[in-house]
Amino acid sequence: MTTDVAFKQRLLTPGPTAVPPQVLEEMAKPIIHHRTKAFQAIFAELSELLQRLFVTSGPVLSIAGSGTTAYEAAQVSLIRPGSKALTIAGGKFGERWQDIYDAYAPSLGIEQVRINTPWGHAADVDQIEQALKEHPEISVVTVVHSETSTATCSDVRRIAELVQKTDALLIVDGITSVGAMPVEQDAWGIDVLVTGSQKAMMLPPGLGFVGLGERALRRLEEVQPGPYYNLDLRKWVKSHAKNDVPFTPPVSLIRAQKVACAMILSDGLEAVHKRTRGLAEASRAAFKALGLDLVSHSPSDSVSGAYYPEGVSDSELRAAVRDGHGVHIAGGQDGRGDKWKGRIFRISHMGYVDAEDTRVALGAIETELAALSDSFNPEPGVAVRTFDATLGG
Amino acid sequence: MTTDVAFKQRLLTPGPTAVPPQVLEEMAKPIIHHRTKAFQAIFAELSELLQRLFVTSGPVLSIAGSGTTAYEAAQVSLIRPGSKALTIAGGKFGERWQDIYDAYAPSLGIEQVRINTPWGHAADVDQIEQALKEHPEISVVTVVHSETSTATCSDVRRIAELVQKTDALLIVDGITSVGAMPVEQDAWGIDVLVTGSQKAMMLPPGLGFVGLGERALRRLEEVQPGPYYNLDLRKWVKSHAKNDVPFTPPVSLIRAQKVACAMILSDGLEAVHKRTRGLAEASRAAFKALGLDLVSHSPSDSVSGAYYPEGVSDSELRAAVRDGHGVHIAGGQDGRGDKWKGRIFRISHMGYVDAEDTRVALGAIETELAALSDSFNPEPGVAVRTFDATLGG
Repeated sequence: MTTDVAFKQRLLTPGPTAVPPQVLEEMAKPIIHHRTKAFQAIFAELSELLQRLFVTSGPVLSIAGSGTTAYEAAQVSLIRPGSKALTIAGGKFGERWQDIYDAYAPSLGIEQVRINTPWGHAADVDQIEQALKEHPEISVVTVVHSETSTATCSDVRRIAELVQKTDALLIVDGITSVGAMPVEQDAWGIDVLVTGSQKAMMLPPGLGFVGLGERALRRLEEVQPGPYYNLDLRKWVKSHAKNDVPFTPPVSLIRAQKVACAMILSDGLEAVHKRTRGLAEASRAAFKALGLDLVSHSPSDSVSGAYYPEGVSDSELRAAVRDGHGVHIAGGQDGRGDKWKGRIFRISHMGYVDAEDTRVALGAIETELAALSDSFNPEPGVAVRTFDATLGG
Repeated sequence: MTTDVAFKQRLLTPGPTAVPPQVLEEMAKPIIHHRTKAFQAIFAELSELLQRLFVTSGPVLSIAGSGTTAYEAAQVSLIRPGSKALTIAGGKFGERWQDIYDAYAPSLGIEQVRINTPWGHAADVDQIEQALKEHPEISVVTVVHSETSTATCSDVRRIAELVQKTDALLIVDGITSVGAMPVEQDAWGIDVLVTGSQKAMMLPPGLGFVGLGERALRRLEEVQPGPYYNLDLRKWVKSHAKNDVPFTPPVSLIRAQKVACAMILSDGLEAVHKRTRGLAEASRAAFKALGLDLVSHSPSDSVSGAYYPEGVSDSELRAAVRDGHGVHIAGGQDGRGDKWKGRIFRISHMGYVDAEDTRVALGAIETELAALSDSFNPEPGVAVRTFDATLGG
């Protein structure tokens, strides 16, 4: 069975997320050439909308690829060869940014100062302050704002304050935060803010975005390019100033992102953040009412996760929720040390999802958990009732 | 004026090319999650169709990004650190592959043996044979099959025969050849064949494809990964075997590529090659009948280029053709030494373009050249008449 023939499907996965029909419709428009005034006008409009979403006056680059492509580009283009990177991880994506610097370490002569917090915990700000003091050779700090794998939020605002006092640049993984929760690049002092298209940006996957502050732009000029070509942000910055990109861009995605950004901004960033937070808080309350343990000690607003009750099979539960209710949720992921595959499930609150969709998902989860486990016997309907009460409260 | 409000537009540019409505329609389908059986089935089907297009039994990877992304991945993942690369260039894209190895040279300890033929000329096979003999340390050879910037075709089949006798791998830039002209990866002995989505593949930009032969797969296992993460083909090969990709894929483009490949294969590769070649030959005849000089001494079937008559402004001509006839054609490009910007124009024969579209383009070019130049006075209608006679002959 492919989705083509399946009936109504609801994507509650933390990326890709559901895409509004207006945005899908834009994807089907005839292709225009990228070296035209028509495309440049679209690109300029998108760039301005992205600046409003990032809350920055600096350039926000649109790079073909995944969020990882965009983040790798920032990591490698901005670090000073021979320096140190402070890499903060507490989940699969934080660990990925460490893996990326591992791959470049011999070539760039760089070392990592790693802070690995237990999965489900926010980055430890005191530890970061200490590390910045101990290692003045740190030229770049990487941190994840909303760690999707653990549904956990870190205090990027405070971390940015600390990093701003040093010569190091802060590169923030905002892949599941931009457009979902408050994050203000300029006001918070975030040197580099990265996101991807398929999360709160309400687009299919295929584009990454990199917002660059003044200190980051200066660093690009100071540092000699290293072993990379496509990912060299200098090329992208240079083209961006002319409403262009260095390599043929995914035209359809760029036009569609313009439509999606306009939808977000017409709702208003504050309203979107409030809706996302409301869905997250009410979902967490529903999980607790079901007697489930949350996976995060510092929950993100964009995704919520809970441990399965004893004895429930992840693949069976997700299949039942999908086949019986058309609801797609995510399981857990494995990291270097922590193994969350099979132990947790996650639902997204990002983008084109509302209270009705979330209610359907919670009802489906409750029903199928109860069907799969003899020992799991919640009061029938408690998940949705708690969700409604919390949302209304 | 944006294309949204413009009337009928005809893309005769050599990428992006026009996309069939059936393919655009597929782009607008609801997003499905990539870690699902439904997506895996689509991905498996696409992979099989790609193998038929590449005429290979090896894996053909689908990588998010531009054709340059895919080519860089092949270049860096496959070269042996400390070895030499034989890099053959005769246009902007060949020079780009040299620039890429330049960027990695210090990190990978590699050297280039460069063969730069004058723009508009095919790669010199004897020179390649000589270089392979003189430099046994060559571990990789890069060559462009159809050099889009100069509308020039090189004899990749003979080059592959030479490289197959050595320990070096041949990486072919088939970005404007695969799906447009005969190229058989396995039979010709091409170790790595790369193409992009927005050319003969009839898709919007955003995907690159890398076909890997047995020797290339073995090399990936032998060589230690270097300074790259996203572009590490080992990751892509590993996921590919499970009908998966290492990073969130552009789901819409992948489903749409499946539709486009099926369209090509339902016409039949031979029929598509014949159509493309017919359009190219008849267009070149029309250029000559107009008294224009062809830019290439070894013309490609996928794109044709001619020098402007004395005194015609490139930007004025292309604007007149676009605004008066809805026809988009390409100008020239600048390289390191050769400067073709403003001196030439090019039209594409790839993908979703037929004799009617090409006739319209040639008529528009003739009309507007005559309007812009006092000294250019062809017999009225000679371009289209010659095109028709050549096509019919």
